[in-house]
Amino acid sequence: MTLINSSTKGVFVIAVTPFTDNGALDHGSIDRMVDFYYDKGADGLTILGMMGEAPKLTQAESIDVTRRTIARSAGKPVIVGVSAPGLAAIGELTKAVMDLGAAGVMVAPPSNLRTDDQIIAYYRNVVETLGTDVPVVLQDFPLVTNVQISTRVLGHIFEAHDSIVMLKHEDWPGLQKITELREAEAKGRRRTSILCGNAGVFLPEEMRRGADGAMTGFAYPEMMVDVVRLSNEGQFETALDHFDAYLPLVRYEQQPGIGLAVRKYVLAKRGAIASAAQRKPGAGLNAAAIAEVETLIRRQEARLATFR
Amino acid sequence: MTLINSSTKGVFVIAVTPFTDNGALDHGSIDRMVDFYYDKGADGLTILGMMGEAPKLTQAESIDVTRRTIARSAGKPVIVGVSAPGLAAIGELTKAVMDLGAAGVMVAPPSNLRTDDQIIAYYRNVVETLGTDVPVVLQDFPLVTNVQISTRVLGHIFEAHDSIVMLKHEDWPGLQKITELREAEAKGRRRTSILCGNAGVFLPEEMRRGADGAMTGFAYPEMMVDVVRLSNEGQFETALDHFDAYLPLVRYEQQPGIGLAVRKYVLAKRGAIASAAQRKPGAGLNAAAIAEVETLIRRQEARLATFR
Amino acid sequence: MTLINSSTKGVFVIAVTPFTDNGALDHGSIDRMVDFYYDKGADGLTILGMMGEAPKLTQAESIDVTRRTIARSAGKPVIVGVSAPGLAAIGELTKAVMDLGAAGVMVAPPSNLRTDDQIIAYYRNVVETLGTDVPVVLQDFPLVTNVQISTRVLGHIFEAHDSIVMLKHEDWPGLQKITELREAEAKGRRRTSILCGNAGVFLPEEMRRGADGAMTGFAYPEMMVDVVRLSNEGQFETALDHFDAYLPLVRYEQQPGIGLAVRKYVLAKRGAIASAAQRKPGAGLNAAAIAEVETLIRRQEARLATFR
Amino acid sequence: MTLINSSTKGVFVIAVTPFTDNGALDHGSIDRMVDFYYDKGADGLTILGMMGEAPKLTQAESIDVTRRTIARSAGKPVIVGVSAPGLAAIGELTKAVMDLGAAGVMVAPPSNLRTDDQIIAYYRNVVETLGTDVPVVLQDFPLVTNVQISTRVLGHIFEAHDSIVMLKHEDWPGLQKITELREAEAKGRRRTSILCGNAGVFLPEEMRRGADGAMTGFAYPEMMVDVVRLSNEGQFETALDHFDAYLPLVRYEQQPGIGLAVRKYVLAKRGAIASAAQRKPGAGLNAAAIAEVETLIRRQEARLATFR
Repeated sequence: MTLINSSTKGVFVIAVTPFTDNGALDHGSIDRMVDFYYDKGADGLTILGMMGEAPKLTQAESIDVTRRTIARSAGKPVIVGVSAPGLAAIGELTKAVMDLGAAGVMVAPPSNLRTDDQIIAYYRNVVETLGTDVPVVLQDFPLVTNVQISTRVLGHIFEAHDSIVMLKHEDWPGLQKITELREAEAKGRRRTSILCGNAGVFLPEEMRRGADGAMTGFAYPEMMVDVVRLSNEGQFETALDHFDAYLPLVRYEQQPGIGLAVRKYVLAKRGAIASAAQRKPGAGLNAAAIAEVETLIRRQEARLATFR
Repeated sequence: MTLINSSTKGVFVIAVTPFTDNGALDHGSIDRMVDFYYDKGADGLTILGMMGEAPKLTQAESIDVTRRTIARSAGKPVIVGVSAPGLAAIGELTKAVMDLGAAGVMVAPPSNLRTDDQIIAYYRNVVETLGTDVPVVLQDFPLVTNVQISTRVLGHIFEAHDSIVMLKHEDWPGLQKITELREAEAKGRRRTSILCGNAGVFLPEEMRRGADGAMTGFAYPEMMVDVVRLSNEGQFETALDHFDAYLPLVRYEQQPGIGLAVRKYVLAKRGAIASAAQRKPGAGLNAAAIAEVETLIRRQEARLATFR
Repeated sequence: MTLINSSTKGVFVIAVTPFTDNGALDHGSIDRMVDFYYDKGADGLTILGMMGEAPKLTQAESIDVTRRTIARSAGKPVIVGVSAPGLAAIGELTKAVMDLGAAGVMVAPPSNLRTDDQIIAYYRNVVETLGTDVPVVLQDFPLVTNVQISTRVLGHIFEAHDSIVMLKHEDWPGLQKITELREAEAKGRRRTSILCGNAGVFLPEEMRRGADGAMTGFAYPEMMVDVVRLSNEGQFETALDHFDAYLPLVRYEQQPGIGLAVRKYVLAKRGAIASAAQRKPGAGLNAAAIAEVETLIRRQEARLATFR
Repeated sequence: MTLINSSTKGVFVIAVTPFTDNGALDHGSIDRMVDFYYDKGADGLTILGMMGEAPKLTQAESIDVTRRTIARSAGKPVIVGVSAPGLAAIGELTKAVMDLGAAGVMVAPPSNLRTDDQIIAYYRNVVETLGTDVPVVLQDFPLVTNVQISTRVLGHIFEAHDSIVMLKHEDWPGLQKITELREAEAKGRRRTSILCGNAGVFLPEEMRRGADGAMTGFAYPEMMVDVVRLSNEGQFETALDHFDAYLPLVRYEQQPGIGLAVRKYVLAKRGAIASAAQRKPGAGLNAAAIAEVETLIRRQEARLATFR
């Protein structure tokens, strides 16, 4: 069992959950998708996140998806999203997935938190519920959670809880947050892994500010893999070249609401999953959107061809 | 198995969930509390609502509480709150509790709904998920859900779905909403049961506007029972006399956040449950608050003595 | 010119803004209303607050209302609400009203503030904009502003800015906040005046926790005057007796949205203003609501008669 | 005096408000900036919008900026943002700016609107306040206003009010909204001009869906001018070529909070304004951000060079 820790680096792809056209879990596509992500260079996976349609799964299905994904990952680390309105559900699912071999769990704050003290207390309660031996990823995504966590509060939480080993960074704007967190570490605070989300739309700048990699789900994971690798090699201009080639589609896939439909459409087109179907509520792409996506892919392929 | 329907009337007490001081479910207190509520005149119970600490229970515990409450209710109707971020969890818990003999389920809208169309679509998805044979209570509680449902949208939903048989009314202000709903019914729309929440703080006026009763959890259920009975008998002034006697404590118990601590303190004091403990996160009353509550109870007892 | 300070005590009535039936400012009613409030025992007034329809006034009208109110107050202190989306407007109106003889200004936080640091920075900017010689009331009203200010953050702000001399306390629940603020003062932090809002619905408990008085607009200011006076004399039980007599109407007037219509209806009925009209958008009471209010007033009068 | 109407097309640049380093209005830079925007091909300007620091201006300053901008625009249309918490302020500023020769006013919904009926009523009140002869732009920007306006509600408002001639489209995602609005017009609803915001990040797709142009403030207005012109000529691939060249910087400038600092930095660098200073609260760029912006500009220039 591989566990994440505060030095974890690389690309953890936010996996979709594959369904058949009639809404059943598609186990075959789970396997195919897992292989696809690792083939493209992923270092690990994160499942049951916000883009994984987790709230549409029963608890039994969540565990089923986890088991299958971990089995197919053959030792590579799999992080499981366990955010829920109550600590009991978080604790119950965490115990189940850690028993199955998960590498850690990811917890976003519930949207009713407001003051700094409430946020700090929430993560204290989470750690007390999970125990200190479960590695936790703190998901900082104010656009969706409506909870704004300042750098100072993050620092307070990291100081208090060694088991919170990673930040899923998707505050927006958030570049300065990375800089401030790394500066605090330079002054002596313990290190935390920082993997960046937001569909990768600021990934080159995030890497240069000190991020350890990406945790997001763009349908061309090779973009994240390339940008992270080139950044780690100090080839920042080349990283930007690669990033720019993908950016028009990254931008399109980043749209709230419709973004998951785009992602599943592209993954199905690339053969990673059998169907682009989402469980209800969740619509597919109409003809106009498909035409836009196809245009973006065609132009992207042309740009990428110049790198080969 | 008793099911609620669009003519259901009376007092459905929002039950607390009793825990021992160390946070375990207290089965004995469930029985005692159920007996207490019916002794005081309740016509039915609603469990696992927002004041029932439902998010703090695992799924197994939720089912456990439901089974025990229904068994002890001896045929009286028990409504079960099943609100959750995703339809799958709502469907899963609904199936379980209806199999156990629940009288219906209650569903509040998730807080990310904004437009009228989104609200209407949500309840369509709920009914499709649950099937049309499960009686549903629509909980309209904008202060907590942040979702404002206009009378027109409620009417649209009621027209579309016969299985949504009841409105748990706790919009605030909401008196005019009752009037408008009843006026629409007078013009031909099918009838819906309306039971009122908000700790009962407007119950006399709500009854006079056409409500069918109360669904709330004030620690003296006899207040709701008296006000509903007297209102149904047309004794509105006497209903107000009884209501006014309880109002200072109703007001105090209605405070967000601390309200549940007050309610459990009083229920424990009255012998309905063994301990006022809440599961974390959730604090008890400090000395100052206890002194205030005790003062309010003492003065309430003095006023009630004049009725006997 | 009387200025408020950190020892200010008593009842500051939140004044309505009187309009004629066609929506013009009613200057005669301003005079009559000011006299009415002082006749009932008010120690001062607060104008252009949230219940004063301030956003419906042009800047010229705001200054006009201020001038007239201050002139009629004959030396009694008048606080002016100056909350606005931008510091420039706050600064401009503050300068104007302080030149006219206002006793201080009241500033609520804009609803986009989230983190503790943002709230602290906001009040620093306010004080820098207004200068340190203008007494400021910090309005803490999360139900409306959606900004939750913890006791710790309040303390930080009070420490940093001597010119913030008063807290308009209407957090809900908020009794413990008063206790904690007074405890911090007992340990050495400088004193701040605390006047309580929320329509007075917790005034007896607030006084007992250490509040200095009331700043709210219930249409029977004598309730606040009596409860504050009796509490200051240590006659807490008698204070509760008086409070309980008014509570059914206090509760009704506290309803969001419709509350101001109730208040203006009662003030017009009592002769304090000529018309209950509100500027658009803002509806009056319909027949059903008027009947409810009249019932509450009739019963209140009967209870009050027993005190005389 | 040029007025906008429901057929208005082209690029209306959202203008910044230039300040000197000590926070005073910089009149010389207003002139220079206006010239700059028109030199780059703008068809009109929009001032005092959300990115124009409008809430930081006093009313007198707002009128001053409007007068100077209109004078320098020499007959080109200038739209003025007049959004405010109350109708009185909206009406007062509208009257002043229309008297000065504004081409129309822009009104965003206040953030407390929730139901469809509330939104519809709000714009009815706005039109009643302004009169039906003032052309109005409805700003649909849920990311900031927190008000979600469905296509159906927009249609209802457009049907009811001929004077609402334009939609500033910045819902996100919003491409389908354009399609639906144009489809409704094809079926007979009166036409409305649609200019798109969101920093232009979806401008090529928006034009292809039927938008009439752009209303946003990217510091290279020539991007909007090129994309709109090429799209109108049916040269969609070339439009994408131009767009892609600018996209990395568009993306960076679109960041909430820091975006305006980026925009002013670039405008100052390009000579359009003397200083990048913002009025408080509003920070400039630190060294890390400046380095990122400079990298993006350098790379953008290299790409653009291939077009010449």
